[in-house]
Amino acid sequence: MMYPFDVFDLNRVAAVLESLEESIIFRLLDRAQFAENRPAYLLGGGGFPSRGDKSLFQIRLAMQEQMDSVFGRFLVPEERPFTDDLPIPERTPPKAESAFKIGDFNVINQNFDLLQSYRLMLVDLCPSGDDGHYGSSVEQDVFCLQAIARRVHFGALYISESKFRADPSRYQKLVEDKDYEGVLGALTRQDVEARILERLKNKIDSVQSQVNTKIRRLVDPIVLVDFYRDHIINLTKKGELSYLILRCEGR
Amino acid sequence: MMYPFDVFDLNRVAAVLESLEESIIFRLLDRAQFAENRPAYLLGGGGFPSRGDKSLFQIRLAMQEQMDSVFGRFLVPEERPFTDDLPIPERTPPKAESAFKIGDFNVINQNFDLLQSYRLMLVDLCPSGDDGHYGSSVEQDVFCLQAIARRVHFGALYISESKFRADPSRYQKLVEDKDYEGVLGALTRQDVEARILERLKNKIDSVQSQVNTKIRRLVDPIVLVDFYRDHIINLTKKGELSYLILRCEGR
Repeated sequence: MMYPFDVFDLNRVAAVLESLEESIIFRLLDRAQFAENRPAYLLGGGGFPSRGDKSLFQIRLAMQEQMDSVFGRFLVPEERPFTDDLPIPERTPPKAESAFKIGDFNVINQNFDLLQSYRLMLVDLCPSGDDGHYGSSVEQDVFCLQAIARRVHFGALYISESKFRADPSRYQKLVEDKDYEGVLGALTRQDVEARILERLKNKIDSVQSQVNTKIRRLVDPIVLVDFYRDHIINLTKKGELSYLILRCEGR
Repeated sequence: MMYPFDVFDLNRVAAVLESLEESIIFRLLDRAQFAENRPAYLLGGGGFPSRGDKSLFQIRLAMQEQMDSVFGRFLVPEERPFTDDLPIPERTPPKAESAFKIGDFNVINQNFDLLQSYRLMLVDLCPSGDDGHYGSSVEQDVFCLQAIARRVHFGALYISESKFRADPSRYQKLVEDKDYEGVLGALTRQDVEARILERLKNKIDSVQSQVNTKIRRLVDPIVLVDFYRDHIINLTKKGELSYLILRCEGR
């Protein structure tokens, strides 16, 4: 997470993305220790009478992001929020980047889709049912979502700019032709994706290898690997496409 | 973290404590990816001009706990805060326990000492120097401290009540004699502690075994093991002693 000097070198971008995998795995495995806890996601449910018709999960996510916004988190391009109408920052992080040409970083924001797919994934990740630990569950959810969103949006910005720089005319032409399938094709390297998923499975296995299974739930690695492939990598690419359209249209 | 039914069975208490180890390891390894970042701990430093003479770390910890307090976190006996003057809860967690006889759970609060020892441990845990990631560092610090504090205070309450129930007259007499060294001696099982530390080292090794060391820092397990022995286990026992004094004096 110590971002390298040449921020658009593709090998270095890939290295940053790889270094984020552990945090995502750690957080998801921690969330998996609690039941799905459906009441925490029901509007008006979860025991928070003072906050209208929101779910406990929505309240937690919004309050976390309000705090983070005050700390300047969303001044960093790859930190995209899930919540609207956040308070203004009281602090500017030293590492807020300005290497990008676009004005509104929320054009790459994939969090609406991420939220839906994450919520569905919980059904496979967690024991079904209700253990009463609603507060802990949504606390872990927020950690998971922030770690995943950082990976998606770091990739969306840095991979796409890096690939654009390697072959600007190709992307320029595809975007001018509105051939967005072509852009996604140009961004896709099946061999690289297969390697990421293989590495991910090995990491999950090793992280879980010394767990006492009497007291801590093991997660089937396939749940995380499928989610990574179908959602994390895919949303990253959709964010890359959004960035490249804006980039090539010179907006 | 799904607390068992017979909450004072010592084997089950030990199992809960064991299940918290992964979360502590995960969070400390994540913090170790950032430099020590001393400016984040300096009063008035860290780029937060609007918040008086506090450090960025202090501001982050206080804001996190203010949010958590609204969610009812500190109604749970083993969740003890680092911060004073927290807002009142707007929500009562379903799992707030009331199995204890004492009125003020902050008698077991070891967070003042924990804060000092954690801050010193960062010198060994993190690369020395400054990488500019102050916000991320203090965010991780808060996650680490909350995970550790939960272990310390869960142990302080549940181990001591469990051991007291196994031999009430022994603890009653030691406390009446004000033989607090004797209480600590009665609470200590060197063989159990040695087993915890050995298990911890194995877990750290396995969690780190698939890490790409070109991009993610490995932590020497001895740093975490020493911290666990000298501070986490010791503070847990100090909390147990505080609880037993109150318990036996019938306050």
